[in-house]
Amino acid sequence: MGSFVTHLEAPLDGTRLDHRALQTVHAGRPLVARYDLPAVRRAVSREQIARRAPNLWRYRELLPVEDERNVVSLGEGMSPLVRCERLGERLGLDDLWIKDESQLPTGSFKARGLCMAISRARELGVTRVAIPTAGNAGGAMAAYAARAGIEAWVFMPVDTPLVNRVECDLVGARVVLVEGLIGDCGALLRSGTEAMQWFDCSTLREPYRIEGKKTMGLELAEQCDWRLPDAIFYPTGGGTGLIGMWKAFDELAQLGWIDDERRPRMFACQAEGCAPIVRGFERGERFAEPFANAHTLASGLRVPSALGDFMILDAVRESHGAACAAGEASLTGWMRTVASLEGIALCPESAACIDVLAKLAERGEVRRHERTVVFNTGAAQKYVEVLTGCEPARRLVLRPGAAVDWKRVSGEWCA
Amino acid sequence: MGSFVTHLEAPLDGTRLDHRALQTVHAGRPLVARYDLPAVRRAVSREQIARRAPNLWRYRELLPVEDERNVVSLGEGMSPLVRCERLGERLGLDDLWIKDESQLPTGSFKARGLCMAISRARELGVTRVAIPTAGNAGGAMAAYAARAGIEAWVFMPVDTPLVNRVECDLVGARVVLVEGLIGDCGALLRSGTEAMQWFDCSTLREPYRIEGKKTMGLELAEQCDWRLPDAIFYPTGGGTGLIGMWKAFDELAQLGWIDDERRPRMFACQAEGCAPIVRGFERGERFAEPFANAHTLASGLRVPSALGDFMILDAVRESHGAACAAGEASLTGWMRTVASLEGIALCPESAACIDVLAKLAERGEVRRHERTVVFNTGAAQKYVEVLTGCEPARRLVLRPGAAVDWKRVSGEWCA
Repeated sequence: MGSFVTHLEAPLDGTRLDHRALQTVHAGRPLVARYDLPAVRRAVSREQIARRAPNLWRYRELLPVEDERNVVSLGEGMSPLVRCERLGERLGLDDLWIKDESQLPTGSFKARGLCMAISRARELGVTRVAIPTAGNAGGAMAAYAARAGIEAWVFMPVDTPLVNRVECDLVGARVVLVEGLIGDCGALLRSGTEAMQWFDCSTLREPYRIEGKKTMGLELAEQCDWRLPDAIFYPTGGGTGLIGMWKAFDELAQLGWIDDERRPRMFACQAEGCAPIVRGFERGERFAEPFANAHTLASGLRVPSALGDFMILDAVRESHGAACAAGEASLTGWMRTVASLEGIALCPESAACIDVLAKLAERGEVRRHERTVVFNTGAAQKYVEVLTGCEPARRLVLRPGAAVDWKRVSGEWCA
Repeated sequence: MGSFVTHLEAPLDGTRLDHRALQTVHAGRPLVARYDLPAVRRAVSREQIARRAPNLWRYRELLPVEDERNVVSLGEGMSPLVRCERLGERLGLDDLWIKDESQLPTGSFKARGLCMAISRARELGVTRVAIPTAGNAGGAMAAYAARAGIEAWVFMPVDTPLVNRVECDLVGARVVLVEGLIGDCGALLRSGTEAMQWFDCSTLREPYRIEGKKTMGLELAEQCDWRLPDAIFYPTGGGTGLIGMWKAFDELAQLGWIDDERRPRMFACQAEGCAPIVRGFERGERFAEPFANAHTLASGLRVPSALGDFMILDAVRESHGAACAAGEASLTGWMRTVASLEGIALCPESAACIDVLAKLAERGEVRRHERTVVFNTGAAQKYVEVLTGCEPARRLVLRPGAAVDWKRVSGEWCA
C-alpha cells in the first residue's frame, strides 16, 4: 500500500502541491508527479520487474496509484516493438522499429494515460469524469470509466472518426458533439464543470495521464535491454506521450537503470495542416502560438494549442531532436506503403512520423546505423473514413458458381 | 533450427503425411501436426518459458516453424486475461474472466492462426496465398502475407464488415467480393487454384492455423498458473480455436505440465441464425449438416458448414461441455451490457458466448464458484455496422461558445 509519489510539482515555478488531494493545474499550467527515487531503487530491481506480468503495472513503483485495489486495468501495456527491415530498406535505415500501440485496449496508446487517470480518480473518490478529445482518448476514458463504474462525458468534434463516437456510445458514455475543434470541446466542458461537478480529464489538466504515458518510455528501455534508441519519432497532438517518455528517461537515469549520458533525440511529428509545435520550434519560442484554421486528415493531430507546449519544446531541444511537419498529401500514401511492406496498419498520425523520418533520413539527419523507433499510436482500423479512401477504384464482385477467367483477373490486378 | 514436429496426421483414420512438404487435407478432411513430446519435455521447462518475451513464440517448442528466420511476427500473443467482477455479479458468477483477443495484431484472434500459416508458407516456398473469410481472418492473413512479401487474395462475402474489407485493401491484398457466404467464397477460390497456383489458407485446409490457435490454450494454462479453468466459452464459426485449445490441453497433459485428469468443459457458442454445430450436437451426430439460410449479425459465425465439425463435436463431448446457440436479438444488448460493466468492447460473436453463459448460469449448469473464461475474439471497433446500431437515439450537438443548461442536459441524460 502507498505509492512512492512525494508530491505534485509545477515545472514552470517549482510549486509543490499535495498528491493526496484531487489536483488539476497550477496557474493554468500542468503538474507532474515526483517520486522518492532512492526509495524506489531500494524497493525494486530491473530483474524483479522482468519477472512480472507483461503489462504496464509491472512498473508499479514508478506509478502513482496508492492502493492496488484502485487499479482499473484492461491488461494494457508491453506493446510489441516490431523490427521493420523492409521499410528500413526503403528509407535507408538498418535498425528501424515500430512500437505498435494499436495492440492496447481500445486500440490506441490513449489506454495508458487514461487507465492511470481513472485509477487515480477512483482512488480520490471521483464519480463523474469528462474529457475533450480528438478521438481515441475519449474511447479509452469511456472504457476505463465504465469498468470503474464512473459516469463519463466525452466532448468531441462532430467530424471525429465515427468509430471513436460509437465506441463511447457502446460503453454507455454521454457523447457531446461539438461543431469545432478539441479546444472548443474543452471550453464547453469547462463551462459545465461548476454545474456538473465532473472531474476534468483533459490532457495535462489531469496530472496522472502523463504517468501512464511514461510507461512507453519504460517499456522501450526494457525492450531495448536498458539501452535507449538513438531517435524516437512520435506523433504529437497534446504531446503527453513525448513529455512522459522524456520524464521516464530522467527517472530511469536517476535510478541508475540506464546510462545517464545517452538519450534519444526526440522528434515531435505533426502534419502541415496543424503544426503549432513545429512553428514554435522553428521560431525558437518556448510557448507555441495557437494554430489558426487547423485541418488535417490525422484527426489526433488536430490540436491547435497544447497546454504542455513548453514541456514538449523543452524535451525536443534538450534531446537535440526537432519538431517537424509531414506533408498532408503524404499521409495515406505512407499508410499504404508501411502496411504493404510490414503488415502494420499505421494510424494517419503515425504516417506523419514516417514522412518526417523519410525526409530526415534522406538528408542524413538520421543515419543508417542509428536505432530508430516510430510509435504507431493507434489502429488504422479505427479510421474508417481514411481507409475507405484507400480502397481500389475497381472491385471484383463474383456470384456463387461464376466461371472466372483467373488469368485475366491476375493480369489486371497483379501487373 | 528444426522443430519438434514428427508428422502430420489425419485424425479420422490416422494416416501420416510428411510435414516437410506443403500439405492441405487428406481425403477432404483436416490434418493435424504431431510432436515428439518427450523430446520437447527434455528441451524446455515451464520456468524457462516464463522468462521469455510475452508473445506466442514463447511456446516455440510446441510450434511447427523449423527455422526461426521464417517466423513472420507482428508481436502477437499473451493477450490479457481480464477479471470481470461486475459482469460476474450480474450473471451470478464469482470467478469470471475474459481473455481479450482484441489486443492482437489486426484486432482479432485470427492473428494467431495466420501468423503460423504464413510463417510455414514462407518456410515452404509459397509466393501466393488465398483465403475465404467471414471477416477477421482475411485481414489477419493479408497483414502477415504483406509482411512476408507474399501475394494475398482474400475472398469475402459482400456484406462482410466494411473494416475487414478496407484493412485488406490497405496492406495491398486483392479483395474479391462474393455475393454469398463463406462457403461460396471457398468454392470460388478453389475454382481458381489450378490457374492461379495459390496456396489455400482456408480454415483447416491448411494444417498450421490450428497450431497458432492452440496458443490460446497454452497461454490460458500459463496465465492460470498451469491449472485449467472449469469452463470455456468460445464463439464457434470454423472452430479452429476450440479444436486447437483442446489439442493444447492434451499436449500439456502429455508433457506433465498440467493435471491430466482435469479439463475444462468446452462450450461451442453459435447464434440461432447459423448454428450447425449446435444442431449436430443436439442430434447426437458426429458430422454436422450444412445450415441452410444462414444469417446472423455475428458475421464471424456465418459459417454454415465447418470442415472440422467432427473435431469440434468430439472435443465438446469429451469435455462434457455443450454446443449452444445465442438468441439473435440478444447480441447487441449483451455487447452494451458487457461494455458498460467492464469497459470491454466484445465483438458480436463473443456476445453470443455471454448469452449462452447467462442461460447456463441461470440453470445452474455453470456454478457460481467455477472458474469460467469467455473469449473476446475481436475488437467491437471493427464492427462499425453493428456499433452504429448501438448509438443513442438523441445526440447533444453544441456550437463553440454555446450557453448550455447543464442541469437540464443531465436530467435528460442521466435519468
